Amino acid sequence: MTNFTTQIIGIIAGCVTSISMIPQLIKLIKKKEAKDFSYFMIILLLFGVGLWTVYGILKEDLPIIATNCFSFILNLIFLILVIKYKRINKRLET
Amino acid sequence: MTNFTTQIIGIIAGCVTSISMIPQLIKLIKKKEAKDFSYFMIILLLFGVGLWTVYGILKEDLPIIATNCFSFILNLIFLILVIKYKRINKRLET
Repeated sequence: MTNFTTQIIGIIAGCVTSISMIPQLIKLIKKKEAKDFSYFMIILLLFGVGLWTVYGILKEDLPIIATNCFSFILNLIFLILVIKYKRINKRLET
Repeated sequence: MTNFTTQIIGIIAGCVTSISMIPQLIKLIKKKEAKDFSYFMIILLLFGVGLWTVYGILKEDLPIIATNCFSFILNLIFLILVIKYKRINKRLET
């Protein structure tokens, strides 16, 4: 396998894992229900993706920086919405 | 920054993103409620993590292979449990 093919596979892998959050975000915005999500999972993910971005910067690897920056932004939006909807869900329950 | 430090950051980043699924899995097993999760998200994630593993094999990069194999297994368990609990949740609703 050539180095070029390997890079392409890496870029596709990065894009697919990054965009995987999009359908979950859409579902969350549509249903406005967030009680099944774990805060701990989202915070660990944010921390991990942030570290990957640092790794990408140190390695000067643009695909790693770009896909992880994008993931970080998506996960941050997800966290904010989960906080918001969890609060609303709780208020409606009581 | 030395190459060694960069590698350490990469390994920590891989471990953190891999284990981020564990608190979500624990919450799912405890609460047995899965209706907020998007199948499309889990399937994209499985596909992406699978591609990262192929990338790691091609690059002969053990940390990438190990963390993504681990993620793949966790996500597969997560998918199976989400299918199971979504079915049970639906049956209880009707």
